[in-house]
Amino acid sequence: MARFLKSRIKAKGAAPGSLIFMGKQKMDNIGIRLFKYNEHETSEKEFKSIDKALKAIDTTQINWLNIDGIHEIEVIQKIGSHFNISNLALENILNTGQRSKFFEDKESITLLTKAIYYNSEENKITVEQISFVLLNNVVISFQEKKGDHFEPVRKRIRDNIGRIHKSKSDYLVYALIDSLVDNYLINLEQMGEKIETLEAKLDNPTKEISGILFQYKTEISYFRKTIKPLKELLIRLLRSKNDLIEDTNMAYYHELYDLNEQAIDAVENYFTMTNDLINLYNTNISNKANEVMKVLTIFASIFIPLTFIAGIYGTNFEYVPELHYKYSYFIMWGVLISVAGIMLYFFRKNKWF
Amino acid sequence: MARFLKSRIKAKGAAPGSLIFMGKQKMDNIGIRLFKYNEHETSEKEFKSIDKALKAIDTTQINWLNIDGIHEIEVIQKIGSHFNISNLALENILNTGQRSKFFEDKESITLLTKAIYYNSEENKITVEQISFVLLNNVVISFQEKKGDHFEPVRKRIRDNIGRIHKSKSDYLVYALIDSLVDNYLINLEQMGEKIETLEAKLDNPTKEISGILFQYKTEISYFRKTIKPLKELLIRLLRSKNDLIEDTNMAYYHELYDLNEQAIDAVENYFTMTNDLINLYNTNISNKANEVMKVLTIFASIFIPLTFIAGIYGTNFEYVPELHYKYSYFIMWGVLISVAGIMLYFFRKNKWF
Amino acid sequence: MARFLKSRIKAKGAAPGSLIFMGKQKMDNIGIRLFKYNEHETSEKEFKSIDKALKAIDTTQINWLNIDGIHEIEVIQKIGSHFNISNLALENILNTGQRSKFFEDKESITLLTKAIYYNSEENKITVEQISFVLLNNVVISFQEKKGDHFEPVRKRIRDNIGRIHKSKSDYLVYALIDSLVDNYLINLEQMGEKIETLEAKLDNPTKEISGILFQYKTEISYFRKTIKPLKELLIRLLRSKNDLIEDTNMAYYHELYDLNEQAIDAVENYFTMTNDLINLYNTNISNKANEVMKVLTIFASIFIPLTFIAGIYGTNFEYVPELHYKYSYFIMWGVLISVAGIMLYFFRKNKWF
Amino acid sequence: MARFLKSRIKAKGAAPGSLIFMGKQKMDNIGIRLFKYNEHETSEKEFKSIDKALKAIDTTQINWLNIDGIHEIEVIQKIGSHFNISNLALENILNTGQRSKFFEDKESITLLTKAIYYNSEENKITVEQISFVLLNNVVISFQEKKGDHFEPVRKRIRDNIGRIHKSKSDYLVYALIDSLVDNYLINLEQMGEKIETLEAKLDNPTKEISGILFQYKTEISYFRKTIKPLKELLIRLLRSKNDLIEDTNMAYYHELYDLNEQAIDAVENYFTMTNDLINLYNTNISNKANEVMKVLTIFASIFIPLTFIAGIYGTNFEYVPELHYKYSYFIMWGVLISVAGIMLYFFRKNKWF
Amino acid sequence: MARFLKSRIKAKGAAPGSLIFMGKQKMDNIGIRLFKYNEHETSEKEFKSIDKALKAIDTTQINWLNIDGIHEIEVIQKIGSHFNISNLALENILNTGQRSKFFEDKESITLLTKAIYYNSEENKITVEQISFVLLNNVVISFQEKKGDHFEPVRKRIRDNIGRIHKSKSDYLVYALIDSLVDNYLINLEQMGEKIETLEAKLDNPTKEISGILFQYKTEISYFRKTIKPLKELLIRLLRSKNDLIEDTNMAYYHELYDLNEQAIDAVENYFTMTNDLINLYNTNISNKANEVMKVLTIFASIFIPLTFIAGIYGTNFEYVPELHYKYSYFIMWGVLISVAGIMLYFFRKNKWF
Repeated sequence: MARFLKSRIKAKGAAPGSLIFMGKQKMDNIGIRLFKYNEHETSEKEFKSIDKALKAIDTTQINWLNIDGIHEIEVIQKIGSHFNISNLALENILNTGQRSKFFEDKESITLLTKAIYYNSEENKITVEQISFVLLNNVVISFQEKKGDHFEPVRKRIRDNIGRIHKSKSDYLVYALIDSLVDNYLINLEQMGEKIETLEAKLDNPTKEISGILFQYKTEISYFRKTIKPLKELLIRLLRSKNDLIEDTNMAYYHELYDLNEQAIDAVENYFTMTNDLINLYNTNISNKANEVMKVLTIFASIFIPLTFIAGIYGTNFEYVPELHYKYSYFIMWGVLISVAGIMLYFFRKNKWF
Repeated sequence: MARFLKSRIKAKGAAPGSLIFMGKQKMDNIGIRLFKYNEHETSEKEFKSIDKALKAIDTTQINWLNIDGIHEIEVIQKIGSHFNISNLALENILNTGQRSKFFEDKESITLLTKAIYYNSEENKITVEQISFVLLNNVVISFQEKKGDHFEPVRKRIRDNIGRIHKSKSDYLVYALIDSLVDNYLINLEQMGEKIETLEAKLDNPTKEISGILFQYKTEISYFRKTIKPLKELLIRLLRSKNDLIEDTNMAYYHELYDLNEQAIDAVENYFTMTNDLINLYNTNISNKANEVMKVLTIFASIFIPLTFIAGIYGTNFEYVPELHYKYSYFIMWGVLISVAGIMLYFFRKNKWF
Repeated sequence: MARFLKSRIKAKGAAPGSLIFMGKQKMDNIGIRLFKYNEHETSEKEFKSIDKALKAIDTTQINWLNIDGIHEIEVIQKIGSHFNISNLALENILNTGQRSKFFEDKESITLLTKAIYYNSEENKITVEQISFVLLNNVVISFQEKKGDHFEPVRKRIRDNIGRIHKSKSDYLVYALIDSLVDNYLINLEQMGEKIETLEAKLDNPTKEISGILFQYKTEISYFRKTIKPLKELLIRLLRSKNDLIEDTNMAYYHELYDLNEQAIDAVENYFTMTNDLINLYNTNISNKANEVMKVLTIFASIFIPLTFIAGIYGTNFEYVPELHYKYSYFIMWGVLISVAGIMLYFFRKNKWF
Repeated sequence: MARFLKSRIKAKGAAPGSLIFMGKQKMDNIGIRLFKYNEHETSEKEFKSIDKALKAIDTTQINWLNIDGIHEIEVIQKIGSHFNISNLALENILNTGQRSKFFEDKESITLLTKAIYYNSEENKITVEQISFVLLNNVVISFQEKKGDHFEPVRKRIRDNIGRIHKSKSDYLVYALIDSLVDNYLINLEQMGEKIETLEAKLDNPTKEISGILFQYKTEISYFRKTIKPLKELLIRLLRSKNDLIEDTNMAYYHELYDLNEQAIDAVENYFTMTNDLINLYNTNISNKANEVMKVLTIFASIFIPLTFIAGIYGTNFEYVPELHYKYSYFIMWGVLISVAGIMLYFFRKNKWF
Repeated sequence: MARFLKSRIKAKGAAPGSLIFMGKQKMDNIGIRLFKYNEHETSEKEFKSIDKALKAIDTTQINWLNIDGIHEIEVIQKIGSHFNISNLALENILNTGQRSKFFEDKESITLLTKAIYYNSEENKITVEQISFVLLNNVVISFQEKKGDHFEPVRKRIRDNIGRIHKSKSDYLVYALIDSLVDNYLINLEQMGEKIETLEAKLDNPTKEISGILFQYKTEISYFRKTIKPLKELLIRLLRSKNDLIEDTNMAYYHELYDLNEQAIDAVENYFTMTNDLINLYNTNISNKANEVMKVLTIFASIFIPLTFIAGIYGTNFEYVPELHYKYSYFIMWGVLISVAGIMLYFFRKNKWF
């Protein structure tokens, strides 16, 4: 399957706005987990059925409903109708091939973001779509599969660390996206280290290295394309006058914007660096080729004429005067050595070796 | 004929605004088909004459008049005068070399869009101009030839699926353009898969592969140039305050815009990827050349000096002292093998093999 | 003379705003021709003297005064003072090295545009400056030399075709510029066809082809630089609120803008394509070099060792045991053929042939 | 560690807004130094404890509190709570991987800037984060380690030179940042000189030079990325209406902006130049390779045929008529010399040497 | 010294705003020259002391004070205090490494511009900073050294040509900058001609040509960087509402803007062209290398096998049956010629020669 695209063929002919799961099913059962907390208490529970989870929501506290797995359309539909989320937003949550996106309704804000996994062994990036719906006192997050991106946030809720318990649902969404962007930087760090170690290996350019370099380039391009739209999302969010986001938390979203900028900067630094390494690789290949050719030329240019001279006196002509002088053989050696010496001097003068 | 341009020579000297079909006639007879539907009923009929078709239009329902083939200027003119479409708009519909474009009158909106066909065997893209005129309760679509782009939409009308029956003509236009953009993504998926399979073949770079790579680059550039102007069209449409487009449907046009952005993103991903593959190809060629040259140099550098030494003792000088020692021949072999050994050691140390 | 610049040295030291003809005189005598027309009648006359031509102007009709040749400053000055055109505008008309430009006075609009001639045999583009002054009921056009760009428009005036007779002078200017932009597209078509035929020849890359490819690149760059400023001119014209341009004709100028965009698009398509062809050429050269080197390496690597072996037994040592065995010669052949066979197998396995 | 990124892993899971030192500890103890001055007097003192330093601040004068070393969070926290600086600002001061940034509160402005060190021997750039907090009559500067960037400013305060004693704290901040930007230009000058001396060495392209060229490219890219965000910072500062910056000092900040632009210009000049040198290097490598190959081809093409001819008459066939003519040997020499002469003439004519 | 930067080290530690001459002293004594003129009379005088010159200024006329040489800070200071020019402006006039810049005070406008000298023999560009201070009825110009840029303007003042005598000081500044921009175009013309003549020499690519091409590229980049900021200066000047510039003269400044655009266009044309020539050069080098290699391969591939065959029959085996047949030698010739013929046919078929 074309890697940079989600298969559209499934949806061909479907009415736009109809709910179709477009993506690969990455897990068997979907997981439903609800956090409820306020300044004083925290509760955490897993549910088998979405109906029960929805019933358990208590809007006097902050509720975080996390859904792992989005292939059961029915679940998504129930959540949608319960919270009055527009069909368009739901459709987007289900279509995992989207760019980062921002939707705003009167009662909810829907955010489509991307989590990035860097497999440092295969040197491949995989992208997961993570969507958030921000409502009054409720945050719903949708992941394609069970992941541990949000573990730090969960820990902070459980341990009542930082501002999270004192803040409203908009701060929770900020904290969740922040952990995603943090993850971009951590993945980049891993890629960066691997790229920087490649630099040392370029002195002896092998075919494997060129393959790896181009692979990095492709992955970093893909990384960049993936994280850049988050910038637009955040700009739109910062400009939005929605009551769901408190003015006092705007500074945090600004921070998030800066952090994302920093990630983009780093991606571009590594992109440029990879390009430079590829160019250096090519230059090294040329240097190597030149060396090889110099060796060949020196050997061939010295010995081919010498062989010719020896060949002359290997002819069987009846009358070759030189053959009969006593010192001919030694004179020949003298000529041969002189020729070789002159050639070597010439190559040396031209700095061939 | 220059592929990226429509022949302008036909129209040379014609007054601007006069109706001239500029393009290649792609079918013999034009096809006229009228859909009429409202929330309760649907009717579908083919017509031989445009006059009858125009008469059959019933503006209490939604009417979709589809014209396959635009080479009969008379037909276009009749439609134009019946619906009071400006000559400028009609001229643009007839001139198939246009970029995607947006026209607005008080009573109608004209949209020029592009359908893309990717012939995966010849690896060529062909572009068809598809124009829409949006009027109150009427949509007219013009295709250069009979195509099946709109089949999914027809099916939805026939089967009364989705919002289409409950919506006005602006939703129909949206659904039609949506099916075109969907098609961009499906075509891209096909191209993408082919490009990605090329990657594996680059290890053994042949001349054929380089030709194919550059062909992809040209096709993708052309693809990009073709779909980019749709963005401008949609921006203008989204900003337009025309009553023909209902506010409630604006969200759908926003969706369309996002889908097109996604297509542009994917095109650019594949463009970058093709470029990278071309560069990798060139690097592989250099690597290969280096290998070939190393083989040559190793063989030549070892055997040319050896041949010279053998040549020395093939001379017919009367007095060559070495020739008469009993073990000369074996000593020579010793020297030859030593020379070869030293050379091999040198090449090995320099990691030539 | 530097091709991309008009000689400034002539004007060195002259006061800005003084009228100096900066360009090459392209014809001997200037030609003066006046068209007068209204909805009912058309008259057309050539004049020897500018004074008589100016007297013949009848502002109850539309007057089109065409001047072929701009090297007689006196003529330009008389026109300027008769119509009260600013010195700055006149100076610009005379300086043929300008970019496309837009001037606006209360009573006149001056437009500097470019006509392009593509000499398909020498594969060179030449550019002519064509200026228009739009006044109430009067249009003056200045050409560097007698040309046939405007013949289609003249024909339409003579034959009373299209809207031209019913419109005011702004429509005439539109029609004239439209014929220039049309000409861009026609020239591009010719270039495009030639470029596309080059593609087939790249399989056998010769030195001539590389020269031609780079020539196309230079010409297309020049083409692009020449037509791009017309875009700015048209934007300024479209934004201008000048009464000289009627609102009803704005749509035509919009059309012109779109046509120019289409030309720019096509130029860029061909620019990209030429670049791709150059890259493909270079890749083909590398492929070819690789092939050549493989042939060399195969021949040298097989026969140099064989020659060495033969050389060994050509030595004249007194005691070479092998020489005296009866089957030595045949064994040598066996060894030679085996060595050659092993080498061929090795090359084959590495897909060298 | 990935060079272009600060390690994020430390902070993984921490609540945003919590104070964590993210960076490498670059010194053992932090240094605290307080300058107090007004138009008439200046005092300067080092402190061991931050509490005493804070107590010593006298807001009737201008106070400059400089902190060398930011790894003791407690110190930062005390400063923060004493001056009522927001946690967000403090967190940014501690996180040394940030881009240049601007924060504004009612009572304070926080500026994150970068100092650049160019190690001309190792040819590496290192970046230090330097943060400023501007308050009413107080400036606090944070450095990662003891540095001498600000020595010129200290000297001016001590010697009462220039406007500094007559101005408020905003002028001090200006003077401090100005000394950083000045340092950019001084470092650039050093890099520039080294790059320009490389140019002369390109005539004899060695492997070492290519490595150095690419190293420069990487460093200059990094330099550019580091100083560019200062532009945004200054733009935001210039647009800020904060009372902390007096209108009369705006001109100085404008100057600073221009100086930074000049630095960016120079960086880009050297970036372009390095790129050009790399391309010239590659071209020189090709030229060199061509020369080497010509030498090889001339020698091989002349002597291989000659050796063949000599080989013919080294055969031991019983009946070779030429062997028995008296002058055969001399005729052979004649043929050999003629062949060599013709070849040399051919190569000369083709300008091979 | 780093060519693209002025030495900042001099000023290190100096208070910003203090007057320090940053540049190379390009002449011994500074020259002071005052022009006074009005519509009726003109006077021109050289002064030894700035005090006398300042006294001689008569503000009922237009005064043009030209200073050649800016290394005597005292002179600049006296001018500054006499006309009440801000220290910041003076500091900028003295710092010759600045980009083109615009300062506006209530009573004066300061403009920093660049004059370009192209040394066509050394093919180097040198840049001089020329500053203007525009006051009511007074213009002061500062040149780094005695130059003849303004000779045309002086001539016009002396001879009372053009509008200059009838206009105020703002027109004089326009005329002076116009002569600088005119000079850009004249220098470009000279560079352009030299670049265009290089094109013909590329057929026989030598090392010298590649060096020259890259030198042009560097110079043209530098040219571009130098003249581009003038654009910003002019934009700011055009937008300025300063009373010192009369509305009627705005058209002239617009013209200046257009002229500068034309210069930038031309620079970019030549930049592109130089790039293309470099690429063509590289392609020609590859073509040449290919030719050389073909010659080598043809010779080696034909003669190496032949030499092998001859070598076979040069062996001294006792029993080689072929040696004793009478026609062996002639048969060998036949075989040799056949082998050579087959090889030639093969190379011919593959279009190697």
